[in-house]
Amino acid sequence: MKFKDKLLNKAIENKSWLCVGLDPDINKLPNEIDKNIVGVGKFLRSIIDATSDIVCAYKPNSAFYEQFGIEGVSLLREIISYVPDSIPVILDAKRGDIGNASRMYAVSAFDHLKADAITVNPYMGYDCVKPFLEYKDKGVIVLCLTSNPSSAEFQKRTISNKDCSWALYKLVAEKVLSWNEYGNIGLVAGATSPMELSEIREIIGDDIPILIPGVGAQGGDLEASLKMGSNSSGQLAIINVSRSALYASKESDYAEKSRTSALQLVSRMRSLLF
Amino acid sequence: MKFKDKLLNKAIENKSWLCVGLDPDINKLPNEIDKNIVGVGKFLRSIIDATSDIVCAYKPNSAFYEQFGIEGVSLLREIISYVPDSIPVILDAKRGDIGNASRMYAVSAFDHLKADAITVNPYMGYDCVKPFLEYKDKGVIVLCLTSNPSSAEFQKRTISNKDCSWALYKLVAEKVLSWNEYGNIGLVAGATSPMELSEIREIIGDDIPILIPGVGAQGGDLEASLKMGSNSSGQLAIINVSRSALYASKESDYAEKSRTSALQLVSRMRSLLF
Repeated sequence: MKFKDKLLNKAIENKSWLCVGLDPDINKLPNEIDKNIVGVGKFLRSIIDATSDIVCAYKPNSAFYEQFGIEGVSLLREIISYVPDSIPVILDAKRGDIGNASRMYAVSAFDHLKADAITVNPYMGYDCVKPFLEYKDKGVIVLCLTSNPSSAEFQKRTISNKDCSWALYKLVAEKVLSWNEYGNIGLVAGATSPMELSEIREIIGDDIPILIPGVGAQGGDLEASLKMGSNSSGQLAIINVSRSALYASKESDYAEKSRTSALQLVSRMRSLLF
Repeated sequence: MKFKDKLLNKAIENKSWLCVGLDPDINKLPNEIDKNIVGVGKFLRSIIDATSDIVCAYKPNSAFYEQFGIEGVSLLREIISYVPDSIPVILDAKRGDIGNASRMYAVSAFDHLKADAITVNPYMGYDCVKPFLEYKDKGVIVLCLTSNPSSAEFQKRTISNKDCSWALYKLVAEKVLSWNEYGNIGLVAGATSPMELSEIREIIGDDIPILIPGVGAQGGDLEASLKMGSNSSGQLAIINVSRSALYASKESDYAEKSRTSALQLVSRMRSLLF
């Protein structure tokens, strides 16, 4: 099944556009969890068990696994395979290289790790994104306007053309639309810029998912992000929350508290969109 | 020892600014080499043995190892440790993420894989590069103007300011100069754009290494790249060659032929710079 269909099916079934970021931080693990790779695995499986009926996707960030070396990459593969088959997994890896190297990153993400989608960096242009897009059933989610403080440094710079002048991230959004030959592209735009989210949705139209980080620990507004990021059917704005959903309690009720924290966001989504 | 000193020492000792890209492609391996991960390891060790006295650095591209899954990451670590200690290893990984995730990529590259330097993507701005820079003895080599055909799509776009207007890659070069608090930054600029290389060198001054891919299989000119990319002392233009040096022969003389191919480039460097 195509990534976008899998995503839509799950969002409708679970009445949720919440994506939980599976980003293990050893310093934030609950007290009862061993502070090692085995503990991390146990913790993440508990979080998945506690939230799988209220999410539309999971998003493990590769960096949080690579920090543990080879054992971490092994855990990443295990965690992706632990996620129930019907829930799409977005590998947040921000990859991108010249064509033959991007092709190998695609092999790693899709054939070895079995992710349903990957995030990619657009700086090197189309020929670095294309090898990912050629996996037509997989999602390719291009960084557009990120949620970090220094995103404006390049992304919000004004690009001047003969015809018009606008910000780099808008040019990226326009390109993303033009690269969507197989209907499998998406983009990343942070909750920290709701007005820009709305402009991006206008550029890309109704068919492209937007992955929206920045709600929660980074301070973005949930309702504004959903309103500005959704398409005209109130769909395809994927709200990612990592730290605030994962580390809701240090006590033995951590999985339950994690579910409660996620469900608070989902309830607010449901009152707006479902 | 700081990355830049290690690089300079080796370049002067070996009279060479050649960096060999250790990018294993199973379809191009010599006939006698097994077409599996063990064969890849044997092949790469032979190439290192045959070239270690004529290079200034090696550059394994992470994608070429990740394509083999976890065994590939394990091989990457082995190959980095196989390189003689006095030769710097640049991990070509093109990473970059929000601060806490970049910090973890730095842990992976520097603490686990033991690379001396890493390539990073600037699209997300300074706070995504900074965690790498904080490893003050390690090199952080920022993508500026890449050698692939679609690099112009964003990198050569004109950025307009109140005061001036110039291409995005020049803004990146200017930022790289301003980010160099610890003297450990570098940038990537392709041999396929020699005039732009010269402009970049003018922006960044004499102290920052430029990693120059694109000579060889991609068609960039060696002499022009050295002239335009070197500083005023004829230094710090690292010429990377991967495919044309690695796969010089399919026969049992492959390591010898690889050395011969590399040495032809080095001889041309020596007649210009040493």
